[in-house]
Amino acid sequence: MPELVTFENLYPGRDYVITHVNPEFTSVCPVTGLPDFATITVEYIADVLCVELKSLKYYYLGFRNEGIYFESSVNRILDDLVAVCAPRYMKVTGAFNTRGGIHSVVVTEYVKPGWTRKQ
Amino acid sequence: MPELVTFENLYPGRDYVITHVNPEFTSVCPVTGLPDFATITVEYIADVLCVELKSLKYYYLGFRNEGIYFESSVNRILDDLVAVCAPRYMKVTGAFNTRGGIHSVVVTEYVKPGWTRKQ
Amino acid sequence: MPELVTFENLYPGRDYVITHVNPEFTSVCPVTGLPDFATITVEYIADVLCVELKSLKYYYLGFRNEGIYFESSVNRILDDLVAVCAPRYMKVTGAFNTRGGIHSVVVTEYVKPGWTRKQ
Amino acid sequence: MPELVTFENLYPGRDYVITHVNPEFTSVCPVTGLPDFATITVEYIADVLCVELKSLKYYYLGFRNEGIYFESSVNRILDDLVAVCAPRYMKVTGAFNTRGGIHSVVVTEYVKPGWTRKQ
Amino acid sequence: MPELVTFENLYPGRDYVITHVNPEFTSVCPVTGLPDFATITVEYIADVLCVELKSLKYYYLGFRNEGIYFESSVNRILDDLVAVCAPRYMKVTGAFNTRGGIHSVVVTEYVKPGWTRKQ
Amino acid sequence: MPELVTFENLYPGRDYVITHVNPEFTSVCPVTGLPDFATITVEYIADVLCVELKSLKYYYLGFRNEGIYFESSVNRILDDLVAVCAPRYMKVTGAFNTRGGIHSVVVTEYVKPGWTRKQ
Amino acid sequence: MPELVTFENLYPGRDYVITHVNPEFTSVCPVTGLPDFATITVEYIADVLCVELKSLKYYYLGFRNEGIYFESSVNRILDDLVAVCAPRYMKVTGAFNTRGGIHSVVVTEYVKPGWTRKQ
Amino acid sequence: MPELVTFENLYPGRDYVITHVNPEFTSVCPVTGLPDFATITVEYIADVLCVELKSLKYYYLGFRNEGIYFESSVNRILDDLVAVCAPRYMKVTGAFNTRGGIHSVVVTEYVKPGWTRKQ
Amino acid sequence: MPELVTFENLYPGRDYVITHVNPEFTSVCPVTGLPDFATITVEYIADVLCVELKSLKYYYLGFRNEGIYFESSVNRILDDLVAVCAPRYMKVTGAFNTRGGIHSVVVTEYVKPGWTRKQ
Amino acid sequence: MPELVTFENLYPGRDYVITHVNPEFTSVCPVTGLPDFATITVEYIADVLCVELKSLKYYYLGFRNEGIYFESSVNRILDDLVAVCAPRYMKVTGAFNTRGGIHSVVVTEYVKPGWTRKQ
Repeated sequence: MPELVTFENLYPGRDYVITHVNPEFTSVCPVTGLPDFATITVEYIADVLCVELKSLKYYYLGFRNEGIYFESSVNRILDDLVAVCAPRYMKVTGAFNTRGGIHSVVVTEYVKPGWTRKQ
Repeated sequence: MPELVTFENLYPGRDYVITHVNPEFTSVCPVTGLPDFATITVEYIADVLCVELKSLKYYYLGFRNEGIYFESSVNRILDDLVAVCAPRYMKVTGAFNTRGGIHSVVVTEYVKPGWTRKQ
Repeated sequence: MPELVTFENLYPGRDYVITHVNPEFTSVCPVTGLPDFATITVEYIADVLCVELKSLKYYYLGFRNEGIYFESSVNRILDDLVAVCAPRYMKVTGAFNTRGGIHSVVVTEYVKPGWTRKQ
Repeated sequence: MPELVTFENLYPGRDYVITHVNPEFTSVCPVTGLPDFATITVEYIADVLCVELKSLKYYYLGFRNEGIYFESSVNRILDDLVAVCAPRYMKVTGAFNTRGGIHSVVVTEYVKPGWTRKQ
Repeated sequence: MPELVTFENLYPGRDYVITHVNPEFTSVCPVTGLPDFATITVEYIADVLCVELKSLKYYYLGFRNEGIYFESSVNRILDDLVAVCAPRYMKVTGAFNTRGGIHSVVVTEYVKPGWTRKQ
Repeated sequence: MPELVTFENLYPGRDYVITHVNPEFTSVCPVTGLPDFATITVEYIADVLCVELKSLKYYYLGFRNEGIYFESSVNRILDDLVAVCAPRYMKVTGAFNTRGGIHSVVVTEYVKPGWTRKQ
Repeated sequence: MPELVTFENLYPGRDYVITHVNPEFTSVCPVTGLPDFATITVEYIADVLCVELKSLKYYYLGFRNEGIYFESSVNRILDDLVAVCAPRYMKVTGAFNTRGGIHSVVVTEYVKPGWTRKQ
Repeated sequence: MPELVTFENLYPGRDYVITHVNPEFTSVCPVTGLPDFATITVEYIADVLCVELKSLKYYYLGFRNEGIYFESSVNRILDDLVAVCAPRYMKVTGAFNTRGGIHSVVVTEYVKPGWTRKQ
Repeated sequence: MPELVTFENLYPGRDYVITHVNPEFTSVCPVTGLPDFATITVEYIADVLCVELKSLKYYYLGFRNEGIYFESSVNRILDDLVAVCAPRYMKVTGAFNTRGGIHSVVVTEYVKPGWTRKQ
Repeated sequence: MPELVTFENLYPGRDYVITHVNPEFTSVCPVTGLPDFATITVEYIADVLCVELKSLKYYYLGFRNEGIYFESSVNRILDDLVAVCAPRYMKVTGAFNTRGGIHSVVVTEYVKPGWTRKQ
């Protein structure tokens, strides 16, 4: 996978929400070898680090020819992003195109231990 | 009914939500013998097992020529899915096409005894 | 008014929600004698009885040539339905077409005394 | 301003919600003298009096050639309606057309002292 | 930056919400020098001062040729507006057009110390 | 049927098009006795007479409790309107709500003998 | 296949257009045995016979468990309808749900030999 | 009526189309005295003069308190605009808000004698 | 490229139109190496051969990791499809996702020499 | 203005249509100095040269701080593009955001002398 890059959060005193929506995610079904398509949405409250947008784009490209299940890709994106930017809160949503007449969505969240939202 | 198949939940430490939307559900009205059409949405938080998507598709096909009321098909889908995958939480929604000028929606839920959502 | 018919709730152990949307409701304004048009939505949690769909349709037809105000028709539908099926919870919404450039919505609810939602 | 008329609430035992949406509100900007256009939405829970719809329409027409700011017209409508019908709860929303490339919305509420919603 | 102007809140006794939506915000990416486009939404509950709409428009124009990151422009708008009108509550949302196939949204809030919403 | 009223066309030198859309047309199915609902659109180029709008509304109300087929109501409206206002051109479209899962549209036209459109 | 029934066209002097839209067509793929879903639209100009709506609905039901390709079902519906009602003109459109990520539409027409549209 | 102002067409060698859409037109019904609301669209091919946008806005404001029928306002706007800018082609469309449940549209055109479109 | 497969057109006596829409086309930009995404629509009138849907899907997959410009991929798809099925008429449309803030569409057609549409 | 770049049309034997839509065009009003916003659409049939997409983007950026009227910017874009790529056909459409409550669209076309569309 291409490396995820971070930059310093300039407003760490606030719990503000950053959302990045990528409607062009594609990976490969590990069973059939056929491509899957999804919109991946990442919402997070940064602590001291933010995710750099261009590296996020290249990170997603790393899934293009990789065989992976819906449930795994969404949870893995959460794990990878949490690992590099250690957010206060993060939610990753994958909305996958219809396969066999069924459309699927997977939503997973991370909350930093001990954190509760400031006002 | 075709058998529902499960696979192991690889992220049991998280309460993440999986949704499968099937806009092509059809059954038969037990009174008139005419077909009914619905969109069936299953949202759930897996415990140790996930529902396999292809078997879910074939399971739905089993209703195609079966006579069943709206309220019963939605609750029966919930019962059948809970029986095979024992989720922490599951909600089944059936949105039925207009019959006699009236459009109907049935929503039913299951919560595993003793479970409350983790963060 | 045509009689509302009920049938036995086969899943009384669950608090599931049934919704019936009728976009073809019409009555008559008691002042002007001109027709009013509305979408009437009934959402309810049945106790031991469900409302039969065909009788509901005929019940609505009974308003076609009756003079009644917006606020009264919505509350009367709630009263009539509660009287025949004794639900745990019921909400009736009437969304009326524009009259004199103003669009109106009336929403009224019933909660069975002592009932609180199960999980 | 034309007089607002009320009629008796026939269902005072319930806290039901009445909404009137007027997409044809127009007043005049007190600075430029140019017309403003808005959709005004009134949602309320009546106590013993309801607002009569035709008088509401004429009341709104009274703003047609009056110079008034966005914030003032919405709060004044709330004050005038509360004064004549003494509701348990009322919310007035004004959604104003774009001026100078900016679209504005003003939302204001009244809650009768001591009132809390019944079930 | 052009100066933000305020005027007296005529209804300080109420916690009502004013929203200004500007779909024509544009600034410049500090890395590439290319323009960014966003819809900026400001929602606030005034204390004794309101933000004057025309000065807000000119204030936004001040970003037209300025190089600034998404996260910084949204937080800076919040800081600048709070500084001039000292609101009880304010939320600023920036919804940015797609760049590199990814659409971003930043949401940040201010709550006046000690303030809780009146009813 | 209530009488259709006409008024003088003040711009007979131009072939301009007048359209009246009525989304609240209702009649009764002659077989089942159940109501039908439709949007009726009349487009016409007047010769010396125009159709008066209020009388058109009352004319439509005359169908409310009349048993008539889709194809007949649309053609009859065309015949009745042509008879009273003798237009250069007229088209009547009836778009009927779903019955038995099928939505129907009927479109019929009249062209005055010898007429061709002016420029 | 259930029999298609006709009735007499009461307005044979006009070339008016009748459209019936059925969003609930379903057949079976002859290769995979899986169901296909489509919206079938029939537009026609009747000569002396019209297609009766209820028989059309039952005719469509006859495809429910029949194995047939997209191109064949649409052309066969055209052939069957032309055979029973001998229209001046008929067009049949089948818009089929996504299969393998691809959505298909088939459109076929019949024009009665020697016929050209009247005005 | 406020005066309509023109400016020189800088591209008279081309038959290009200019469209101005005003969704905020309002006049008064000459019968009831109640306001009417419309979207007025002007499409034209200029000859040597174009219509100045600000004067067009003030011209429309001149209708705000004037009693005039739908058919007359649209044709009068065409006459007034043709009189001041002598276009090669002009079309005026008025789409009026629902009155008595009926929505109306009036479309009128002017073609300069002897003109046919260049390529 | 995977091979395109054909099957016999069972209705060669009619000029009917078959459309296949693929919203999941992806290729690679030959300059940047970044993926492009498009909806490819093929509309055609078959002569003696139709394009088999599954082979069309695999044919599109052959572009997934190939570097090709927008204009070339659309024209190449037309060439390849014409080569295997020799249609009477074919149109290929590629609607490409935004790149650098600009959304592009390419439309190309083939007409069999000497062919004109039958009725 | 940044230079527009071209590349060789690889399919000059066909009259195919290329469309580029830019929803992020901005220039400055020459009277008020305030920014204008538009979606600019270029549709063309290339002869021997195509417009390179990246240079088109930079060309549009050249308008960002330039004072120019709606009618002039659209016609100038047509002139500039025709000058560099000498197309068989080109149409430029500018759809401008609301100013003073009025939304404007300008459409202008070029046809190469002597050219008529091939099939």
